[in-house]
Amino acid sequence: MFLISGFHSIETVLKNQPKLITKLFISRNKDKRGVKIRSLADRSNINCELIDSKRIDLIVGHSKHQGFAAEISNLGFLSEKDVIPRLKNITTSRVLILDSIQDPRNLGACLRSALAFDFDAVIINKDGSSPINEYVFKSSVGAILNLNIFYVANLSRLINTLKDIGFWVLGLDGNGEDSIFSEKFSSKTAVVLGSEGSGIRKLVKENCDHLIKIPISNKVESLNISVAAGIIMYELKKQHIN
Amino acid sequence: MFLISGFHSIETVLKNQPKLITKLFISRNKDKRGVKIRSLADRSNINCELIDSKRIDLIVGHSKHQGFAAEISNLGFLSEKDVIPRLKNITTSRVLILDSIQDPRNLGACLRSALAFDFDAVIINKDGSSPINEYVFKSSVGAILNLNIFYVANLSRLINTLKDIGFWVLGLDGNGEDSIFSEKFSSKTAVVLGSEGSGIRKLVKENCDHLIKIPISNKVESLNISVAAGIIMYELKKQHIN
Repeated sequence: MFLISGFHSIETVLKNQPKLITKLFISRNKDKRGVKIRSLADRSNINCELIDSKRIDLIVGHSKHQGFAAEISNLGFLSEKDVIPRLKNITTSRVLILDSIQDPRNLGACLRSALAFDFDAVIINKDGSSPINEYVFKSSVGAILNLNIFYVANLSRLINTLKDIGFWVLGLDGNGEDSIFSEKFSSKTAVVLGSEGSGIRKLVKENCDHLIKIPISNKVESLNISVAAGIIMYELKKQHIN
Repeated sequence: MFLISGFHSIETVLKNQPKLITKLFISRNKDKRGVKIRSLADRSNINCELIDSKRIDLIVGHSKHQGFAAEISNLGFLSEKDVIPRLKNITTSRVLILDSIQDPRNLGACLRSALAFDFDAVIINKDGSSPINEYVFKSSVGAILNLNIFYVANLSRLINTLKDIGFWVLGLDGNGEDSIFSEKFSSKTAVVLGSEGSGIRKLVKENCDHLIKIPISNKVESLNISVAAGIIMYELKKQHIN
């Protein structure tokens, strides 16, 4: 369960997956945006609790909510046992694996790009990653509502399951042997990205088929993780449609 | 003038461009990091002011400074008159133009990618963009110290100057006619990106030679701006070296 706030966030959920909302608070009843949210809520039989703006401050922990807040539950993440039924019989498939991404804004931006480049799944390790919260939701611009997100305990085991059903698993690593500039991606490809500070964990890395890098100037240590993720997802999508 | 804080930020500036530091405050004198900063400062004849940690809180406006803060001045940005002398006689050149980027973290991430992909210049409009501050510095991971950054009053005039010296100017726009997937970049290319909410401003857009888009799923309205910038800079660098 987590809270979201702000007109656009609430509107997105009400339009796409209203059933995720377990509580809805508004402090604005009569203006245009208040009427819009109330009418969307009515349509899905969601009860709107009209409360004071100051109380919303307390509920969400800040004052940038524009008079709207909602409690989100049951996001319906998938688990390890869903991997084979969901991904076995696709002939062209793109999967993103995120190993221990810490920053909610980076995680949200990765999810936004994964949906933008039609990824079939995003796989996240349960322990050690940023939880899905308001900040992830906001920077994903609602993408988490439309993605197949798998939460798994053991990324190495999951990588081996993906290999068993025909995926080629690439790790993105600053010390990768080959450059993405010359990489020809397999029709079923999973790409693994590691955390902001320390990259992919050792054991996870050892389970990848191959490590590649994005060549960059030696004046820069690394790219921002959501930028690096965006680049590899872009390149993969481009090759899959060409 | 702006303030930066934290061990890594201060260390980066002391190692790369110590002359930018006009004041240096530390609250830690004797531990390993304190000794390191003091020795770097000594080497460049910078006076270290030893003050209480609480006073640094007040100076920088937060408490995440790790006991180190510095005032940065004279970053030495370039202006419109520097464009021709700096960019006329390069045969292969990449330039990034940022029109009114508001979010300091996005601006910082764009600068980090521009340095990573060896861009010759980043051009920013003076009014309407996020100022270069501590947050931009932090998310650029110091890249602003090593980039040619031009601050200009009039982006449209600047675009025409670039055209006069042989640049092809591309705007990245969700409604662009052509796709980046099939774009062949000219050897001297400038790419323009607009703000998070509203894209490239109308007049600036009209001055571009051509508008292209990054094709994305219709489930997503747009990519994060620093991700989009990273992708186009990556593609440009890739084509220029191939």
